[in-house]
Amino acid sequence: MAALDAILNDIDADLENALERLFAFLRIPSISTDPAYAGHCREAAAWLANDLTALGFETSVEETSLHPVVLAHKPKPGAPHVLFYGHYDVQPVDPLDLWTTPPFEPHIADDGQGGKKIVGRGSSDDKGQVMTFVEACRAHIAMSGELPCGVTILVEGAEESGSQGLPEWVAANRDKLGCDVVLVCDTTMWDRATPAITSSLRGLAYFEVKVTCADRDLHSGFFGGAARNPIHVLAKIIADLHDADGRVTIPGFYEGVHERPPEVLEQWRGLGLTPEKLLGPIGLKEPAGERGRLPIELVQSRPSCDANGIIGGYTGEGTKTVIASTASAKISFRLVDDQDPQALARNFEAFVRERIPADCSVDFITYKGSRAISLPFDMPQLGAAKAALAEEWGVPAVTVGAGGSIPIVGDFKRILGRDTLLIGFGLDDDRIHSPNEKYDLTSFHKGTRSWARILTALSRG
Amino acid sequence: MAALDAILNDIDADLENALERLFAFLRIPSISTDPAYAGHCREAAAWLANDLTALGFETSVEETSLHPVVLAHKPKPGAPHVLFYGHYDVQPVDPLDLWTTPPFEPHIADDGQGGKKIVGRGSSDDKGQVMTFVEACRAHIAMSGELPCGVTILVEGAEESGSQGLPEWVAANRDKLGCDVVLVCDTTMWDRATPAITSSLRGLAYFEVKVTCADRDLHSGFFGGAARNPIHVLAKIIADLHDADGRVTIPGFYEGVHERPPEVLEQWRGLGLTPEKLLGPIGLKEPAGERGRLPIELVQSRPSCDANGIIGGYTGEGTKTVIASTASAKISFRLVDDQDPQALARNFEAFVRERIPADCSVDFITYKGSRAISLPFDMPQLGAAKAALAEEWGVPAVTVGAGGSIPIVGDFKRILGRDTLLIGFGLDDDRIHSPNEKYDLTSFHKGTRSWARILTALSRG
Repeated sequence: MAALDAILNDIDADLENALERLFAFLRIPSISTDPAYAGHCREAAAWLANDLTALGFETSVEETSLHPVVLAHKPKPGAPHVLFYGHYDVQPVDPLDLWTTPPFEPHIADDGQGGKKIVGRGSSDDKGQVMTFVEACRAHIAMSGELPCGVTILVEGAEESGSQGLPEWVAANRDKLGCDVVLVCDTTMWDRATPAITSSLRGLAYFEVKVTCADRDLHSGFFGGAARNPIHVLAKIIADLHDADGRVTIPGFYEGVHERPPEVLEQWRGLGLTPEKLLGPIGLKEPAGERGRLPIELVQSRPSCDANGIIGGYTGEGTKTVIASTASAKISFRLVDDQDPQALARNFEAFVRERIPADCSVDFITYKGSRAISLPFDMPQLGAAKAALAEEWGVPAVTVGAGGSIPIVGDFKRILGRDTLLIGFGLDDDRIHSPNEKYDLTSFHKGTRSWARILTALSRG
Repeated sequence: MAALDAILNDIDADLENALERLFAFLRIPSISTDPAYAGHCREAAAWLANDLTALGFETSVEETSLHPVVLAHKPKPGAPHVLFYGHYDVQPVDPLDLWTTPPFEPHIADDGQGGKKIVGRGSSDDKGQVMTFVEACRAHIAMSGELPCGVTILVEGAEESGSQGLPEWVAANRDKLGCDVVLVCDTTMWDRATPAITSSLRGLAYFEVKVTCADRDLHSGFFGGAARNPIHVLAKIIADLHDADGRVTIPGFYEGVHERPPEVLEQWRGLGLTPEKLLGPIGLKEPAGERGRLPIELVQSRPSCDANGIIGGYTGEGTKTVIASTASAKISFRLVDDQDPQALARNFEAFVRERIPADCSVDFITYKGSRAISLPFDMPQLGAAKAALAEEWGVPAVTVGAGGSIPIVGDFKRILGRDTLLIGFGLDDDRIHSPNEKYDLTSFHKGTRSWARILTALSRG
């Protein structure tokens, strides 16, 4: 095994090549939620499988009910074994006109703060983060001819589609996924200088609701004032979802939600995440959720509800005096603690049906739901990874909760019986899921170096 | 002047040719609200101008601030002079997948009730209706070499865009529009057997509201529960527009709205327009508007408010865990009696602004508004036209109010000082503004015959 310094030096020396590889990966528009891009998802899987095969991994592209997964093994008998998980699929790019450069033409740009950034869809979420791990493996193999511990890499293509098909695939292939710990690189640092390990994740329940009133579109002159308008019905449902204090009004919604103990709240207050700090960078000032809560509570330890999309009637330029036949909305919930997505699905549907007029109808789509998860604080790999991160960044790594959901983490615990270390190098201003997504060059470079250190640290375990 | 019978016989004999002419007109996709179709609007104007020139009209295509108008004169010194108004523009065709045949490939189909119908966008609203008048003129000219009275034809191309530019054009060209009465063919019959003259029209005020919260789209995992969601803000505004009794809640909204006298309400009750009769054919049962009103009141003599369209966030297939930066809605009002669209614009804007959180913003577009209008019951041309209609249809013509707006009618009164006879042959099930628009062959044929009779009746002046 080569000295860690030699491996880190190799990462530094190979950075330009690593970026070229990442750009090739980023150029593939692997949008998983839109069936039109299914071929590109397959292309991204093949690209990654090819790269891992070249590194000496035993690699396969395996089918799921949606897009295929890339599975790669490089065992090391007698050493600890890690399972790395990431995703090669990316978010849709609309609204396209807000991108200053085409989303699938990645490039390096100044970040306006004296540094460089990698710009393009997937640069942060999650291709850039996945490649930090792959590049760390590459450096170990280049310098030592081997990895310090056994590694299985599982990269899926449907994370942005709720990991559709993946839990079933994991359950059916659990014998290929044996490991001591799972590693995921799909989270953020605390700030540009401070690495973080995410120890809890909110869950997710995602629904689509389509209200139908008349059996055709109507002229508002003939029927306005007499015919029910599905946009009004849907607007009332969405308006009713929160009370004046920002609490979700669905009966039973807060069952399973626990208050944080005073000492945790005190620690959070000490982090100084004011409304201005959280919301100022995105052009807002006032927390919109539950009144009287810390901003960090609102996004980490409290559940939330958002309409993620709505459409109905005429939405083109100019005017059309129409009363639409249908209107639909995508509505999702972030869950915490012991909230049950299935109970929520029942309660939400009842809540909606109560608000549908007798002569109108409603259709539901229930997308995959996931419970919130959290990590045991005493796991040995957590300490090893924190120490490795502290060596790379020169400051201690913090342990945080995250607002977002990575549903598969709960499945790894349930099916494989293994906990997950969520270590990511994204930043809050990476604009993931938005136009002009970026990943700091420092995130990519020092992220790769961090994984090289973590692999060495975990091999001692 | 030929005998009326000869003219009517000519209409019967020439029906196939008349349909061919109408189909040529219908094939032009002259959608006025979408700038992409501006060239086709111009094409439709040219087609009609060409046809009128061939009939011996002195014709011109004149520019307005949006699409051009067709203006055609055929004076007859000493005889009464009529100004016919219609529009060559049509509604957008979305949702296109609900059309059973392409919207701009007109054809004859069985109407399922033993008759025939003309299918295609604009067949009823308003190209088919316009051509009933043009074909009536053609028959008079063919049989007599002249028209029984002087005729000016004004056909605009922006009616579905709120007649943008037309009032200014009318004001600037009032010397070309001198007449004794205005005729409009853009309304419906009472039912398939009973002709109607529309004696009142609701006005219209049409707005677009765009709410902006954060300065970019956000990930609901990171910000859900803390960041304001513009879809929620907009939903609350729309939900707040009506109270539990279906009344519009904007302060001052009902100023200028008058109750109908008991004898009118009694007469309306006698028409037997039950909720089932009005709403059953469109798949609904319960009147949605102001509680305790007759259905005919709701659509004719009461104002109304409808969200005509809404869009925000992710509306593609599948899921996206986004909190949108913006959401927007098109919201319009049907006005009656003395309601003032400008006062409503002020009150509506204040109503919306009150509901915008301090760190969010709202943009307004105010499209053209029009007051409601009504006809003096004692005008002599009304009696002449009713008698002519009764001769053609074999039953008395009824005088009704209409729920829809034809804003230019108010401008004709204001600028030209002339009242308008609204005589149309559309039916309530014509699906205007909807997929699969149609115009009964009977509407077209007997509509043409009706105008031939009305022209003769008005010439007696």
